[in-house]
Amino acid sequence: MGQLGRVFDPRSIAVIGASDNPEKRGYRAMLDLVESEYEGRVYAVNPNREQVFERTAYASVHDIPGEVDLVFVTIPAAYVPDAIYECGKKDVAGAVINTAGFGEVGEDTLEERLAEAAAETGVRILGPNIEGVDFPHRNVHLLGGIRTTPGHLGMLTQSGNIGHQLSVDAQDSGNVGFSYNIGVGNETDIEFHEYLTFLDSDDMTNGVVVYVEGMNDGRAFLQAAKRVSREKPVVVHKSGRTSAGKGSVKSHTASIAGDVDVLESAYRQAGVQPVENIDLLVPVAEALTNAPIPEGPRIAVLTDGGGHATVTADALKRAGLDLPDLSDGTQATLEEIYELSPSLDNPVDVMGAADHEVMWYDTARYILEDPNVDALLVAGAALGYEECWAGDPGERDPEIARKLGELVDEVGKPVVFASMWEELNCSTALEQLAANRVPVYERIDTAVSALRALADYGTHLATVDRKSDFVLPDGSNAHPTVTAALDEDRSTLTEFESKELLADYGVPIAPFELAETAPEARKAAAEFDGPVAMKIASRDIVHKSEAGGVELDVAGQEAVTEAFDRLLTRANEYDPSAEIEGVLVSPMVGDGIELIVGVTDDPEIGPVVTCGIGGVLVEALDDAAFRALPVTEYDARRMLDDIDAQALLDGPRDLPSVDRSELIDLLRSVSDLVSENPAILELDINPVIATADGLSAVDASIEMGRD
Amino acid sequence: MGQLGRVFDPRSIAVIGASDNPEKRGYRAMLDLVESEYEGRVYAVNPNREQVFERTAYASVHDIPGEVDLVFVTIPAAYVPDAIYECGKKDVAGAVINTAGFGEVGEDTLEERLAEAAAETGVRILGPNIEGVDFPHRNVHLLGGIRTTPGHLGMLTQSGNIGHQLSVDAQDSGNVGFSYNIGVGNETDIEFHEYLTFLDSDDMTNGVVVYVEGMNDGRAFLQAAKRVSREKPVVVHKSGRTSAGKGSVKSHTASIAGDVDVLESAYRQAGVQPVENIDLLVPVAEALTNAPIPEGPRIAVLTDGGGHATVTADALKRAGLDLPDLSDGTQATLEEIYELSPSLDNPVDVMGAADHEVMWYDTARYILEDPNVDALLVAGAALGYEECWAGDPGERDPEIARKLGELVDEVGKPVVFASMWEELNCSTALEQLAANRVPVYERIDTAVSALRALADYGTHLATVDRKSDFVLPDGSNAHPTVTAALDEDRSTLTEFESKELLADYGVPIAPFELAETAPEARKAAAEFDGPVAMKIASRDIVHKSEAGGVELDVAGQEAVTEAFDRLLTRANEYDPSAEIEGVLVSPMVGDGIELIVGVTDDPEIGPVVTCGIGGVLVEALDDAAFRALPVTEYDARRMLDDIDAQALLDGPRDLPSVDRSELIDLLRSVSDLVSENPAILELDINPVIATADGLSAVDASIEMGRD
Repeated sequence: MGQLGRVFDPRSIAVIGASDNPEKRGYRAMLDLVESEYEGRVYAVNPNREQVFERTAYASVHDIPGEVDLVFVTIPAAYVPDAIYECGKKDVAGAVINTAGFGEVGEDTLEERLAEAAAETGVRILGPNIEGVDFPHRNVHLLGGIRTTPGHLGMLTQSGNIGHQLSVDAQDSGNVGFSYNIGVGNETDIEFHEYLTFLDSDDMTNGVVVYVEGMNDGRAFLQAAKRVSREKPVVVHKSGRTSAGKGSVKSHTASIAGDVDVLESAYRQAGVQPVENIDLLVPVAEALTNAPIPEGPRIAVLTDGGGHATVTADALKRAGLDLPDLSDGTQATLEEIYELSPSLDNPVDVMGAADHEVMWYDTARYILEDPNVDALLVAGAALGYEECWAGDPGERDPEIARKLGELVDEVGKPVVFASMWEELNCSTALEQLAANRVPVYERIDTAVSALRALADYGTHLATVDRKSDFVLPDGSNAHPTVTAALDEDRSTLTEFESKELLADYGVPIAPFELAETAPEARKAAAEFDGPVAMKIASRDIVHKSEAGGVELDVAGQEAVTEAFDRLLTRANEYDPSAEIEGVLVSPMVGDGIELIVGVTDDPEIGPVVTCGIGGVLVEALDDAAFRALPVTEYDARRMLDDIDAQALLDGPRDLPSVDRSELIDLLRSVSDLVSENPAILELDINPVIATADGLSAVDASIEMGRD
Repeated sequence: MGQLGRVFDPRSIAVIGASDNPEKRGYRAMLDLVESEYEGRVYAVNPNREQVFERTAYASVHDIPGEVDLVFVTIPAAYVPDAIYECGKKDVAGAVINTAGFGEVGEDTLEERLAEAAAETGVRILGPNIEGVDFPHRNVHLLGGIRTTPGHLGMLTQSGNIGHQLSVDAQDSGNVGFSYNIGVGNETDIEFHEYLTFLDSDDMTNGVVVYVEGMNDGRAFLQAAKRVSREKPVVVHKSGRTSAGKGSVKSHTASIAGDVDVLESAYRQAGVQPVENIDLLVPVAEALTNAPIPEGPRIAVLTDGGGHATVTADALKRAGLDLPDLSDGTQATLEEIYELSPSLDNPVDVMGAADHEVMWYDTARYILEDPNVDALLVAGAALGYEECWAGDPGERDPEIARKLGELVDEVGKPVVFASMWEELNCSTALEQLAANRVPVYERIDTAVSALRALADYGTHLATVDRKSDFVLPDGSNAHPTVTAALDEDRSTLTEFESKELLADYGVPIAPFELAETAPEARKAAAEFDGPVAMKIASRDIVHKSEAGGVELDVAGQEAVTEAFDRLLTRANEYDPSAEIEGVLVSPMVGDGIELIVGVTDDPEIGPVVTCGIGGVLVEALDDAAFRALPVTEYDARRMLDDIDAQALLDGPRDLPSVDRSELIDLLRSVSDLVSENPAILELDINPVIATADGLSAVDASIEMGRD
């Protein structure tokens, strides 16, 4: 971290493109450095001026007499690579490149030249195409005159204005802020995972918030995030969530694995908390870095009115959190204290009780000490009623707030407030709570999102060692079927090859025989004892249904012969030049829920396994779960929990339930297969039928590519 | 409205239970009236005191010398009915009953006595079990010392604290407030729909927000809301959204029609905008009462950064709103103005443009004048950047804000801001916008919820005359099958009766014959030409599958005989005392998507029709749409749009698509049937199979009850 240490704690900064013209970014950067509390040396670089800001303007960084740790670059894009070479000669540690006009506007060649300059000189590049950076604790403010709220969160953002908005959110929240505000831009040199690793090593940083539009190396980010999130929470908003255009979509798996759900599933797998909008980044990070991490999702509610009790319970249930019953002991204690109260179970409604200390401290303690409870949400008008209406805080509420902070530390369970006073900033007690690191939110749904993230993070930390490390093997153990096909320059395996390959890795495939002649087909059908499915087998015919190449429920020797002949006739009509290998004969599989299992190659994070409701419902329901490969047994098990239509897995009406253990094994087999054969870009098993006898894959296809 | 006019604009108020003890509610009420700007006469009623608040304390309302319009009642519950009788003698118009301890704690008899007192005396009762009321424009503040933010929204709330929170929300928002804050409580006398009708007639009220936990007469509310919402928007949050326990659930329809979706669908049908949490009530009402109502859901975005453009587009798409392309003319105009900008289509990103007036006024005008655009969302750092960072508003931004307000009036399309500055209250220009009735929100998702409600309200107003009025016939036209069964004291129709009844109303039923003997069954099967379904027919056997009373895919004369015998044997084993009418024989219906159509009797709004994905998937997917009866052709059509799995209706893979016109006819037939036969409490047609030949209902059951 030596070089990045110089970048993020620079003793000297040069502005390349320094200017005396207030309209220019190079003026603002100089002003930011010269008029701030920054204590390092500041240099101006501008070959067209003698002086800028009444100090020497150097023609090149190279001409600066002293050492330069960091440069801020704001000159036309075409000149940037040469400037970096100059920096290299001067042993500059890093360059913040404000200049835009590279890959983001199609200037890919220029961006490649910039990447080469970084690689050849060793100068680390932040950006390009970023508003700048702000390191508040270093007094390095390079965001065009705007300062970031100081604190202990590292911020990585691909939008300057969203970075500003997060800073404003932190300012409003009162007890979080940022150790670094880093524009990530095009990631031409330093990528997300490197920033994340630096922030992990940084003592001033206790958590990370990320606004990302797209990552160059999402796989490396997952690996780093898994390490970092063991110690420091990482909260991410991924935008472009609904964008289309994920490249060509050949398989059913690809058609349902094309959106942000894939990335969010992988983030969660790595212990990162994704949030669904930017307004939740700071509030969630505030909870994760200020409150103790709970063991699970069992939330108790304490409030002073039936209305807030009801709407809070609604919001918690909607978020999938649990509202446990309080233990008998706690209930008995509360009944002793409150003679008459509408509700003494969870939510606990203390409306009508007189003493604030009893309501908001004693009751909170009893609830927090209850073994059934992982966390407490206080909602409504607590700790502010008198002050916000009458203007006098008194001494009690602030003191109760102070003691609540101590209680949280003592019990080690989080308390989160959703207060109707927060938006008015009218309660001294709520300020005291925030000062004691108890998160206070304006909206109930924000508080619930924070609790959801706390519970998820707690669950992750308890299970992290059972989850994937996202490390893929090197491909040296590839299967002969795959290497043979690649040697023949084929990118598609036949159904026969795909099924043999899957069977080799332990995937339960419905029995199948390749019949080259009608008598062979009859013999196979007779062995299977019952109606059969017959499908044309040809490496030249990929879309078998379209070619009329599928006959189902064929029963009887005569029918098999006729079907065999029909399949060959239709295949010949469909593509006279197709080389026909024969007909694949399989027994008809019994009734059961149809599942889909597949793998796609995500442009950001690489291979991802999908499992969901398949067959005729696959696109209609779009109900699937995703995990980055390789998956562990735990990953696969949790994946099944992510499927919405759990009732289908449990066997609706007369259908058998899905054997989850067998499905987990199948997912791990597919994970092994694709991990060991990186040439595979798409794998599609649809359907896998869950019959009373277990799982049976009845169709499969595999697409490959070369890097 | 004469009497309610006295209630809501009282010239004199008496406090029953007035007290000099500051711990008592009757002290606070006196203080609120005496120390406020209320100009009417104030009387104290307390039989145990000579004086209260240094004025005469009357033993009874009856003893007060002058006229009394309104009383505030805060005495023990047991004394309340008698106090109302006293008020009756005095011709009091209304009573705000703060006292709790009636039906809400199981004291149903006491609540009935109170209802009788109201009915017999003609005194209108608000509550009981309410914190109070606040009529800000009348200076009537009876909420325990707390004052409601004044404005033009009527508020109906079943929680005092949530009423306070809405008032705080309005205070923070800056340009909405309340004409009335009315605690609704137990609705012992005045019900939601009566308040709503009063607010409709009130000149100071331009919209209504409702927090409801449960309504006594939701049907009357729907009827009133349909009328009121033609002129004044109505926004509702219904809590207890996830509560269980809707009474006995006999049918599949009932199992999926038991949650808040039913009520929200009916609200929308009536033109009411439901919101999913209380934090949205005020922001949505703000938009609906301040902004012009748009014609549709086509939203343009104007912003100053790629990050905000992306996250805003995400949020709009997530909410189901459209982001139209701008027309060629608008695009050409914008290209002339902005020489280089990352995005000139929608979202329009003007980052880097220099002139604020061009960015935020001219561009807004071009976009609003575009015929492709119904409404404009401005997101990001607009109109506040300099002031919020540097402290100086200058003159330009406030002036632009003022002109934007005029532009909205001129063009008649709404503009909504989502501003990162709003939470800091740092921008004079944003205050100017609010003053000009342009809604400004802190969070993008709040702005999007407001736009969603604006678009939905606009769509409603354009189609209101094609939607239900919620008026049900009186039942005088009941069907003989129904009246006959009721005369026999039966609550369940047999499948045979149900199908005949449905067929009479025009529902397409798969052909069926009742065979009393095996030869009759063979004859029926032969007529149907193909495999048949056979089901035991007995009014004593409701759960046919459970009784082994169903045989499917029976083919051939011999098999029909065997199946007939098996069905009778099993029925006899299942219930030896059951009277067997015979066996119902039907042809097997071809492949197709299975739908469910049904009717349930909602405890709040009465008969509701359900349509969704049926068969084996019904509970697993829980994908259905709901409308209150009777449904119009338009209601039924929109209902089908509400089903999530549209791809199933459109015919996935090789299955035929659902004939929507035929399904609409079916829904209207069911609506007619149940509307004309109010004894029917549950109707279940599951499945209706959508084959290539059209819809075919293959199973049906009907449950009845008496009022």
